[in-house]
Amino acid sequence: MTTTATTAGSTALSAARLTEKHRPTLDRALEAIRSREYWSPHPEHPKAYGEESAVAGSLSAGQGQAAFDALRGSRFEIEGQPGTAGPQGGWASTEVSPYGLEMGIEYPRPDIDVLLPEMRKAMPAWRAAGPEVRAAVCLEILARISARTHEFAHAVMHTSGQAFMMALQAGGPHAQDRGMEAVAYAYAEQVRTPETAAWSKPQGKRDPLELDKRFTAVGRGVSLLIGCNTFPTWNGYPGFFASLATGNPVLVKPHPRAVLPLALTVRIAREVLTEAGFEANLVALAAEREGEGIAKDLAVRPEIRIVDYTGSTAFGDWLEANARQARVFTEKAGVNTVIIDSTDDYKGMLGNLAFSLSLYSGQMCTTPQNLLIPRNGISTDAGEKSYDEVVADLATAVGKLLGDDARANAILGAIVSPQVRERVESAASLGEVALESRPVEHPDFPGATVRTPAVVNLESAKPEAEAACFSECFGPVSFAVAVDSTADAVALLRRTVREKGAMTVGAYTTSPAAERLIEDACMDECAQLSLNLTGGVYVNQTAAFSDFHGSGGNPAANAALCDVAFVADRFRTVEVRRPAESAPAQD
Amino acid sequence: MTTTATTAGSTALSAARLTEKHRPTLDRALEAIRSREYWSPHPEHPKAYGEESAVAGSLSAGQGQAAFDALRGSRFEIEGQPGTAGPQGGWASTEVSPYGLEMGIEYPRPDIDVLLPEMRKAMPAWRAAGPEVRAAVCLEILARISARTHEFAHAVMHTSGQAFMMALQAGGPHAQDRGMEAVAYAYAEQVRTPETAAWSKPQGKRDPLELDKRFTAVGRGVSLLIGCNTFPTWNGYPGFFASLATGNPVLVKPHPRAVLPLALTVRIAREVLTEAGFEANLVALAAEREGEGIAKDLAVRPEIRIVDYTGSTAFGDWLEANARQARVFTEKAGVNTVIIDSTDDYKGMLGNLAFSLSLYSGQMCTTPQNLLIPRNGISTDAGEKSYDEVVADLATAVGKLLGDDARANAILGAIVSPQVRERVESAASLGEVALESRPVEHPDFPGATVRTPAVVNLESAKPEAEAACFSECFGPVSFAVAVDSTADAVALLRRTVREKGAMTVGAYTTSPAAERLIEDACMDECAQLSLNLTGGVYVNQTAAFSDFHGSGGNPAANAALCDVAFVADRFRTVEVRRPAESAPAQD
Repeated sequence: MTTTATTAGSTALSAARLTEKHRPTLDRALEAIRSREYWSPHPEHPKAYGEESAVAGSLSAGQGQAAFDALRGSRFEIEGQPGTAGPQGGWASTEVSPYGLEMGIEYPRPDIDVLLPEMRKAMPAWRAAGPEVRAAVCLEILARISARTHEFAHAVMHTSGQAFMMALQAGGPHAQDRGMEAVAYAYAEQVRTPETAAWSKPQGKRDPLELDKRFTAVGRGVSLLIGCNTFPTWNGYPGFFASLATGNPVLVKPHPRAVLPLALTVRIAREVLTEAGFEANLVALAAEREGEGIAKDLAVRPEIRIVDYTGSTAFGDWLEANARQARVFTEKAGVNTVIIDSTDDYKGMLGNLAFSLSLYSGQMCTTPQNLLIPRNGISTDAGEKSYDEVVADLATAVGKLLGDDARANAILGAIVSPQVRERVESAASLGEVALESRPVEHPDFPGATVRTPAVVNLESAKPEAEAACFSECFGPVSFAVAVDSTADAVALLRRTVREKGAMTVGAYTTSPAAERLIEDACMDECAQLSLNLTGGVYVNQTAAFSDFHGSGGNPAANAALCDVAFVADRFRTVEVRRPAESAPAQD
Repeated sequence: MTTTATTAGSTALSAARLTEKHRPTLDRALEAIRSREYWSPHPEHPKAYGEESAVAGSLSAGQGQAAFDALRGSRFEIEGQPGTAGPQGGWASTEVSPYGLEMGIEYPRPDIDVLLPEMRKAMPAWRAAGPEVRAAVCLEILARISARTHEFAHAVMHTSGQAFMMALQAGGPHAQDRGMEAVAYAYAEQVRTPETAAWSKPQGKRDPLELDKRFTAVGRGVSLLIGCNTFPTWNGYPGFFASLATGNPVLVKPHPRAVLPLALTVRIAREVLTEAGFEANLVALAAEREGEGIAKDLAVRPEIRIVDYTGSTAFGDWLEANARQARVFTEKAGVNTVIIDSTDDYKGMLGNLAFSLSLYSGQMCTTPQNLLIPRNGISTDAGEKSYDEVVADLATAVGKLLGDDARANAILGAIVSPQVRERVESAASLGEVALESRPVEHPDFPGATVRTPAVVNLESAKPEAEAACFSECFGPVSFAVAVDSTADAVALLRRTVREKGAMTVGAYTTSPAAERLIEDACMDECAQLSLNLTGGVYVNQTAAFSDFHGSGGNPAANAALCDVAFVADRFRTVEVRRPAESAPAQD
């Protein structure tokens, strides 16, 4: 290829360096998704970052804070991204920190008609780079993001409302793990078909038919990432990296309240792409002004061939129905159930559940909502416990966990939006309140809305229970639901998952029969099950490289993070075949 | 599992035998999809079948004919399939042989409300069997189909209109290859995640967090196969076996004109399932009466979670838009292009193209339609050839190939429907006819409609060319299109693939620059390219285990046969995790 030889040459040099640097990590990630044993290259401890730390060249806590502060109240330039200066372009500033901190950052709001053609133009060279170089470039992007984990922690905290430690961990290393997992899956699938094959079909006494075949992984087209408010990086990175690694440009449309974490990601990705000799426009940011709702327009553009979305069921369903020119991956709302049948660690169970309900004020798509408890009570290592005792003891456990305001703030974080605040404030209208939500003062951010979780008692037989149990009540509100028996609980679980979907199911039981009933229900309805968690692992947390997030087989999500199906249809394999004697044309 | 131990035990015995029998073939198929070199376990030669033949226990030519004749004019019972006897059930007879042979076979037209729940009930035991046993059962079904290849040949011939030899090969071994390829892909993807994992996360000085995890591949639900008229088995088997192998029951809704090949398949599958200890209702047939159009009702049933469809773009688009509770795989219409730039084997090119246009009267989704030829002519090993010469020489080549009526009948087969006959008869209305279609008498079947292909001249600049080039003209009508240059041809190719889709692209060129232009266009628009075919391989034929059929990346089809994406989303992985110290409950 004479015309592109110079570019290709310099790219190859840089690409070779990146590949050499990241190949061992890629191989280790590939091994992790095969064994699904514990692994992570991204440290969780805040002290692992900073000069002379485990993460080379990373920002320390103080440097991360300073970098974040420097961004506030300014224009977030993305060098070279087209479409912002023209008459249809502009800038947008829509973030409101749940902690009340003034953000005041302006982001590019590009003219899509200018931007999208530039993104498409960047595809051929990215395709020609091949799966290994694309993976190496993605891992370099992740490495640079990792080095700025402290900066991202503040960005995630002040957009999602997560407490600092959670923002650092879930928004930093855990999100980076999920991104790397997607890169590993994407790489593995692209190299499953060989680059070339010599095909020789016997023809009896005649000469065999002989063809040379070449197979190339080609991206589908521009991939649209529609970000969410609560986990902008954790929920965004799988689709972002899966699409980029499979040869697709990625247009990032962040949630208007959570732009910064993804804007930083876009800027870092463009830097790396440029340095590696590729077009920066393989990754771009499209912020929007208040109320514009540009996702609807973007999602149905013919250039958009993949959509990744996390958010409401209503818009997810709309995307699935309307963005038919694209492959649409959605994570929508679900209703998560915990069945409490019996336990040999009553205290451990209560503590584990209390933490699950409290973490990030229940604002996780994986937080349990319906706690199904037999009305005749349960057997435990601390004796038989009546329904009322179980509910009261759980309320006490939550109260103890959050009794100290400093600890409460560290676990709860802030309420992400006025809608969630209203929901918890009106919890009493849903039934008898077994545990009341209380406001907590934040010592550093007086403007933060912090609330402890509410637990509401419901009678499964009553119509109001039906209404409450069968709709997602996103935020710190859970229902203790009295059921006739564990079998009834399983029947209710089945119906809930089938009709409303579920990201998680939890259960506590010492009975093999009950365990089998619950497992069978989860297999039949396709839901991920955590059994008897009483220690430091919670039903609402999943670990990349090992746990699947969602199943992709019930209404809560049409994809799981991360599996083969999440990556395999983001690229297609184009075959060129020719008679074996005719070698491909050479210059 | 006390309650199912007896069944599981007897299944295990039979399953173990099947696994032992078929594991070597499965391993060989897995190797074939990795290397994509030539391989097939199903012989193409009619004489390979029969007693004392390579295929153990197979029907000879005479036995196959007799078996087919015995089916005609009778009721095709499917033992034990529920829903036919009830008030909403019944029988349907809709086949019309394109050769004029009286078929008169009645098939079950079940009450879906009775049938579907029985199919769902069969899922848990099929899921519990695991990927290897499911693969072995599928390979046993294929082995029994293979043994009856001669019977299938007649069934395919008298429903599709294919000539006998093609019906035997494409409807027999080639279809069986595609089915086995799907089984291999399905098996490989299901075992990619381990069955169990021990997860241990270090916690500094504290004890590590430890979980035992189990991963189970679970089918999505009932899979609906909507069969096509022209290739009932070849186009049906990939989806049928991919779904069954991944744990899903399969409901087969054949095309009303091509029921028998799939009805035989269903009956054989049910026999094997029963013998292996599984529910026969994992596979069922739903025939329909004239004009009922039950596919529309079936496709949107909540029990249906997967749809495989081959047919018109209109209904394929409808399925994609409406069957949103299901994962929908479609192969629709496309417009296939051949670019003729230059050749070093003019005679070989003409012969190859003549055969491609003639095979099965052009009634293949892969038959070339638009032949783009520079108006200033082309360079060949036989000197410069003007546009008119190329078209005239191609017409002569077709004439020679089909000059002998016996050979013409053996290549052309019969016209599948009155719609196709009308299309070829009105070809002259589309432009100047360069090669006229002629009727051919069939010595054995005087009722057969046999037609040679027509070639119509078009001027790319004229509006009527635009209309003709941009719509699929299914059947023996092709267009010779005069273009300004090869670059113009490539531009037209790009537009055609992007707007209308293509299952195949062919090109002839000796110019490296032209070759690169064409390859780049196929990469950009995601189309499968055959270059310089002049021998015994044709652009409209693909070989299982090596070639991809369609790309899944342009409007002609949203999936390719067969790749990872075709199987990976037919099952989901359900994870059950629990603290490591608590072993799963045992009886």
